[in-house]
Amino acid sequence: MQLHGQNIIAGQSQAGAGSTFNGLNPATSAVLEPAYQEASTEQINAAVEAAAAAFDAYRHKSADERAAFLERIADEILALGDELLQRAHAETALPLEARLMGERGRTMGQLKQFAALVREGSWVEARIDLAQPERAPLPKPDIRRMLIPMGPVAVFAASNFPLAFSVAGGDAASALAAGCPVVLKAHPAHPGTSEIVARAIATAAEATGMPAGVFSLVHGTSHEVGSTLVKHPLIKAVGFTGSLRGGRALFDAAAARPEPIPVYAEMGSINPVFILPGALRERSAALAEGMKNSVTQGVGQFCTCPGLAVGLSDESFTNFSDKLNELMADAPTATMLYPAIAKSFSDGVRKLAHLEGVKTTQAKQTAEFGKTHASPTVFTTDAATFNAHHELSEEVFGPATVVVACDDRAQLESIARNLEGHLTATIHGTPEDLKEYVTLVEILATKAGRLIFNGYPTGVEVCPSMQHGGPYPATTDVRTTSVGTAAIARFARPVAYQGFPQAALPVELRNENARGVWRLVDGAMSQANCGE
Amino acid sequence: MQLHGQNIIAGQSQAGAGSTFNGLNPATSAVLEPAYQEASTEQINAAVEAAAAAFDAYRHKSADERAAFLERIADEILALGDELLQRAHAETALPLEARLMGERGRTMGQLKQFAALVREGSWVEARIDLAQPERAPLPKPDIRRMLIPMGPVAVFAASNFPLAFSVAGGDAASALAAGCPVVLKAHPAHPGTSEIVARAIATAAEATGMPAGVFSLVHGTSHEVGSTLVKHPLIKAVGFTGSLRGGRALFDAAAARPEPIPVYAEMGSINPVFILPGALRERSAALAEGMKNSVTQGVGQFCTCPGLAVGLSDESFTNFSDKLNELMADAPTATMLYPAIAKSFSDGVRKLAHLEGVKTTQAKQTAEFGKTHASPTVFTTDAATFNAHHELSEEVFGPATVVVACDDRAQLESIARNLEGHLTATIHGTPEDLKEYVTLVEILATKAGRLIFNGYPTGVEVCPSMQHGGPYPATTDVRTTSVGTAAIARFARPVAYQGFPQAALPVELRNENARGVWRLVDGAMSQANCGE
Repeated sequence: MQLHGQNIIAGQSQAGAGSTFNGLNPATSAVLEPAYQEASTEQINAAVEAAAAAFDAYRHKSADERAAFLERIADEILALGDELLQRAHAETALPLEARLMGERGRTMGQLKQFAALVREGSWVEARIDLAQPERAPLPKPDIRRMLIPMGPVAVFAASNFPLAFSVAGGDAASALAAGCPVVLKAHPAHPGTSEIVARAIATAAEATGMPAGVFSLVHGTSHEVGSTLVKHPLIKAVGFTGSLRGGRALFDAAAARPEPIPVYAEMGSINPVFILPGALRERSAALAEGMKNSVTQGVGQFCTCPGLAVGLSDESFTNFSDKLNELMADAPTATMLYPAIAKSFSDGVRKLAHLEGVKTTQAKQTAEFGKTHASPTVFTTDAATFNAHHELSEEVFGPATVVVACDDRAQLESIARNLEGHLTATIHGTPEDLKEYVTLVEILATKAGRLIFNGYPTGVEVCPSMQHGGPYPATTDVRTTSVGTAAIARFARPVAYQGFPQAALPVELRNENARGVWRLVDGAMSQANCGE
Repeated sequence: MQLHGQNIIAGQSQAGAGSTFNGLNPATSAVLEPAYQEASTEQINAAVEAAAAAFDAYRHKSADERAAFLERIADEILALGDELLQRAHAETALPLEARLMGERGRTMGQLKQFAALVREGSWVEARIDLAQPERAPLPKPDIRRMLIPMGPVAVFAASNFPLAFSVAGGDAASALAAGCPVVLKAHPAHPGTSEIVARAIATAAEATGMPAGVFSLVHGTSHEVGSTLVKHPLIKAVGFTGSLRGGRALFDAAAARPEPIPVYAEMGSINPVFILPGALRERSAALAEGMKNSVTQGVGQFCTCPGLAVGLSDESFTNFSDKLNELMADAPTATMLYPAIAKSFSDGVRKLAHLEGVKTTQAKQTAEFGKTHASPTVFTTDAATFNAHHELSEEVFGPATVVVACDDRAQLESIARNLEGHLTATIHGTPEDLKEYVTLVEILATKAGRLIFNGYPTGVEVCPSMQHGGPYPATTDVRTTSVGTAAIARFARPVAYQGFPQAALPVELRNENARGVWRLVDGAMSQANCGE
């Protein structure tokens, strides 16, 4: 495939109008061709208008047709073969077999899970209350309610998952599954990968008879591209995975619109890990090993990387901490996704390393600037120092973590109580620990979207029960998840139909439950037909 | 009951610190005692801190305990007997038997519906994915997800439902049902009614062993009271029913917080009614009668009052329009809720009456200023005039409506397409009309939360399928409803538990489904136990 470096507006390649930029191989500093052209305001508007024009046709495709489209995207991605993986590898330095093949599988798996969800159909949450014409003093009308798609959605791709949270990633898949056309802002760190996947989506759309405007891809490095997209009056919701600053800027722009719209920004967190005394006594070395693996996995470039470990200051916690320091010193330096992210990491590390009362251990291996290297780092401190320096509880995106020793349980719980919002919170302990630390679990439930017992936060399962979200600043919308099938709800809204004849109702709301979806009929769950 | 005119902070009466204000009988202009004292910043903070302190205890009450509290509130309200109704009547001029007794019943009914919902328990949307330790290449962890309460909620009472959308109204009931303590800002138009109901809630809280901070009532007329409440960092969500200006101000304040929080502001709309040719031919006089009744019901002081009727210019539409003009001219003037709302109505009427191309018909009966009267009003115009004056599509809160004659179907559909968001949209037609106007139904589904066929938007059923919401500016959150049991979801957020032992899980997520709630287990809906 000859890459063209253009924006893809409703299936058509279009040269951009603004400045250009190139992908870069972070491991070699080599500039990758072709140059990519930033989308003009006119092109962004054209993409949104095409999405709005496609909305009517797209949302009325049958569930089977929409599912077939999603499945076809997965097939087209697989058919891209090695070319996609090689380009993603060149643009991100992520390992081919150990990571990108798996991430491609996950991307396809997500698309297929959403396809299955749409085919099954119960996600529309149908509710039917039948008429009671004889009710006194007033007759009860017939009311039926279900979720329908919101409208065109803007999705901002993440840098750290060039496939699974990028062009055909979770946000795009869930919006398309809900029935919403997508205008996708590519992440400038992997423009070639983005183009390849976007072309696969365009092919799938054409092959399955979807309106061309169902998907567009726009490139850009400037804030204007994103803000033009979010402020467009025809955009009805926004998905984003990235930094706190970037996500908050989009949230603020969306809230200031004449018509405010929801922004689902997943902005990462430090994913605190609490290690309780019983677990430490049993397995402090294994815990250090597990923590090191989780912190350094993917060069620490996961939203769920654990950036904080808290325990009670005793001999076994010292053993854990010493072992973790040792393992991190021996961990290899590794290439991050792009130069700016590596610079941000080393700036963050330097800031914490200068704090009094903080011991800093870095990998012994030299980090090479030309290879965009990050050096795994552990900061060791006590609770008083941790409480005195807010920056110790802020995310340093990359392979770094802070270890905090507390004097007593009250101090440990007070650290938990003072946490901001996080995607996850982890507890290591014995069943006895868990009984003793009930309060800790209760506190953490108010601070995170997912609680993990005796595991690690990295490795996010894609399934119906996954909650990948959390209180601000982990996300801008604590009510939602960006991973798992529940993510579809972000792009849908309820509509009630009162007094409509059967033929004019959506199929999911008719008396005859032809699709066999689960419905709440007069207050009872059922897959049966209803009414007369 | 001797009214004390004070704020009620966590069950304790406290004199306010700021200015005072009195209730007023709008029908007589009589000042009602006692004077009410605006809550100080310290009192608002104390109320929020008490709510936050109560949150832990309150959310851990069992479903039965929480349900008993809600039911007890309903019982206490009924036990207030005539005193409550008389005070509400004095403060609002709403008819005692024709309206306030019914509204009391609705208020109690809402509390009991939420109690039943909480007792049944499936509202927590439990999802369980069982572990698959043998899965390759990676074992699948055990993950279980459910909704938990968000935290302390600020609720702003509405003026137009002194009981059902006020102190113990739908917003407070749904927040309490979800497990969230409530700080309630009383509407200054009915402070005495608010005090009486708040004292009933405090009694119910004490009688059922709830923490005192579960409910507080603050009074005030200044914007500061509301903005202090919404900006308090311990408040996690806001419910509001009122004007666009008021709701947007709260939304903006909440979005600008360091930690943004959701604001569920229901801000009303004009609830367009489309009258199709077949229906007009069959029953133009009955439609005029129905429209008049809906517009003037409750002196037009419903969020769902239909402020726009659109049809094709033909003889039967002229008959409808003439009949409606005649009926509105004969309709009685009536007392609105308070002087400012009546002034705002007459200002709005005057503005529209001055537009060229608009014929204005007002009730013949003289409106008395001292009785806070509104004069039922109908504006008749054509599509060109309607399209030229945006103010004709803005809500004039009160008994007024705009009738628009269109030249053809395209013009009618273009009016629908140009609508902003509304709570409801209504279509009158024959089944044949509906077949011909499929596009109209599709357009209206993108513009409103509830579509009504051959009915009227006033009269909002409280049931699981009700959707009382809609795109902005009808509300600030199109994903939610403020009426019906689905309203509980506004005050809850999902949390996932990964790898937790049975005993440490919430009861709804354990293998043994002791409460028999509906759960999605490995993708299948079930009320059964799961796992081993």
